[in-house]
Amino acid sequence: MEASVTIQTRSGSYVVTAGTGIRKQVIKYLPKSYESIYIVSDQTVADLYLEDIKKQFASNQVDSYVVPSGEASKSIDQYYELITDALEKGLNRHSLVIALGGGVVGDLVGFFASTFMRGIDFVQMPTTILAHDSSVGGKVGINHALGKNLIGSFYPPVAVIYDVETLKSLPLREVRSGYAEVVKHGFLEGESFFRDVIRADLTKPLDERTLTKHLLQGIQVKAAVVERDERESYHRMFLNFGHTLGHALESELGYGTWTHGEAVAIGMLFALKVSQRTFRVDLPYEAYYEWIKTNGYPTVLPPLKAESLINKMKKDKKTKNKQIQMVLLKAVGHPVIQQMEEEFLYNQLKDFLGELVD
Amino acid sequence: MEASVTIQTRSGSYVVTAGTGIRKQVIKYLPKSYESIYIVSDQTVADLYLEDIKKQFASNQVDSYVVPSGEASKSIDQYYELITDALEKGLNRHSLVIALGGGVVGDLVGFFASTFMRGIDFVQMPTTILAHDSSVGGKVGINHALGKNLIGSFYPPVAVIYDVETLKSLPLREVRSGYAEVVKHGFLEGESFFRDVIRADLTKPLDERTLTKHLLQGIQVKAAVVERDERESYHRMFLNFGHTLGHALESELGYGTWTHGEAVAIGMLFALKVSQRTFRVDLPYEAYYEWIKTNGYPTVLPPLKAESLINKMKKDKKTKNKQIQMVLLKAVGHPVIQQMEEEFLYNQLKDFLGELVD
Repeated sequence: MEASVTIQTRSGSYVVTAGTGIRKQVIKYLPKSYESIYIVSDQTVADLYLEDIKKQFASNQVDSYVVPSGEASKSIDQYYELITDALEKGLNRHSLVIALGGGVVGDLVGFFASTFMRGIDFVQMPTTILAHDSSVGGKVGINHALGKNLIGSFYPPVAVIYDVETLKSLPLREVRSGYAEVVKHGFLEGESFFRDVIRADLTKPLDERTLTKHLLQGIQVKAAVVERDERESYHRMFLNFGHTLGHALESELGYGTWTHGEAVAIGMLFALKVSQRTFRVDLPYEAYYEWIKTNGYPTVLPPLKAESLINKMKKDKKTKNKQIQMVLLKAVGHPVIQQMEEEFLYNQLKDFLGELVD
Repeated sequence: MEASVTIQTRSGSYVVTAGTGIRKQVIKYLPKSYESIYIVSDQTVADLYLEDIKKQFASNQVDSYVVPSGEASKSIDQYYELITDALEKGLNRHSLVIALGGGVVGDLVGFFASTFMRGIDFVQMPTTILAHDSSVGGKVGINHALGKNLIGSFYPPVAVIYDVETLKSLPLREVRSGYAEVVKHGFLEGESFFRDVIRADLTKPLDERTLTKHLLQGIQVKAAVVERDERESYHRMFLNFGHTLGHALESELGYGTWTHGEAVAIGMLFALKVSQRTFRVDLPYEAYYEWIKTNGYPTVLPPLKAESLINKMKKDKKTKNKQIQMVLLKAVGHPVIQQMEEEFLYNQLKDFLGELVD
């Protein structure tokens, strides 16, 4: 099975193809031919799939570089080393860079591609579920000692080649983390996609057909938002559903304690609760809560201070004039941006933490 | 006197205003208001003009940062330090960055602005003649240990505010360096602008009216090219007139030995000679040679190896398939891109060096 979606950007368009085993036919999905190919991957993924990609090109035309696995590779030092290596290997503006890996590799390599000799073409080959989100939308970047993703740009790939076969090797925790963003896209899209997603049982191996369908549907939701609004303003903010508290939780618990998706899953639960209170509507809070619980997302929190989380929310990159904005739902498929009254939010959060505390 | 040119870019447009004393009315030229202002300058320029800009804003709304003067500030370390400082001072996406200085400051600060939180607005306030070239066209970037401007992006400013009064403090050598690019724009534009430029006597203080006129005309030439072709392809390459040998000379002599403009001035002389030979046309070689000589550009070369320079030319960022391309003139105002036959070029260069050698 193979399916594709075309994404429009300001400067053109690119095709996202998802399918089984398509990593073995990379050339078929490239928009044109290139003088040379430079594949960047992390150690974990390189061990599994680098050779599959590399052997499709003439040996004098392809080079590769492997970074350590994990978030620490999104550093200024790793970025500079990547540039040094690429220059030493003779990469130029007529070369293509392939980012083979999850979000860390995609973000780092995309940022590298966006700034190497003022920009060269790059292809995303995501190998995680979470990367269905990060590989579309053009956001690339690295971390700064003072915060995540503070250095970056908007730079779309020339193609996304998504081999769902590579997702089979993912640990359950990574599957969970990725599916949180799939569910998010369900919440933004509407009842039918949302209900379809929460039928997924993550504790068993997912069949490739369902996976391909969910990933491409998620990508379509994201693409629809991003096409309206490439640089963050009104509509793109919808994608932050669950992320206001999610980011604060990640930071408060210490990065790596929970996965991004685990934090966002709780963030969405909170956003549902706040939405119900704010708009006096019924949302599938219970059905969603059941799904995250059954599928092993952490639903019991260590003791946390609401005040401290609120302060973190205020420091978010997207904050304007220190007012916290949240994405709320008037219904599944009907997100809105809401300026939050601080005291109300504090009380809601205190209640919420109380319900989930250990 | 004050005059302006509007530059179209892919994503919008911005206005370049040149005039006397306009640094004292910055707010008048900003496209909108900002939460906060962050001025970055180098030590030399900051001592002269930083206060003039700073005092136009409320003291709790403005911050500044001063980098050492000189090319060494276009480093990855300086770039990262700038980001750290900006984060510590609370800069966010609703802030404005002002680059106050010459090309080094404009390139560094523009690259910073293009990648800080994925891009924030910035204004160029050039304080050199050379920066009339670099402040328009959206090229920003820093150096890598392996070469100049290898890290960068295309990122237009939201405004260029060019106070010609600040050019009065320039040393003669900087005036010369800048005027090389003005003459280049003359060569690309046509006889009338070219003849007007070489009437300038750089050894005397230039009157502000002539300066404003030349700078804005030069900017218009560049803008016309850049608007057709923001990312380097056919037309933008015209701007490399004189730069193929120019860059090679800078590198061969060691950066800083000659100014950029001095190297380009000789590069253009060579390009004129090659053009005459290639197309059997008459170009104002003698008039131009007289002008650079009278105005103190170096016209006597140390002993240099043609072979070594040719090798440098082959490594140029713009080289494709290792073939040297040069911008030649069929007439003043009629540039073309020419693939050079290596042996012919080598012989031409050998002759040329022989004529100018010490």
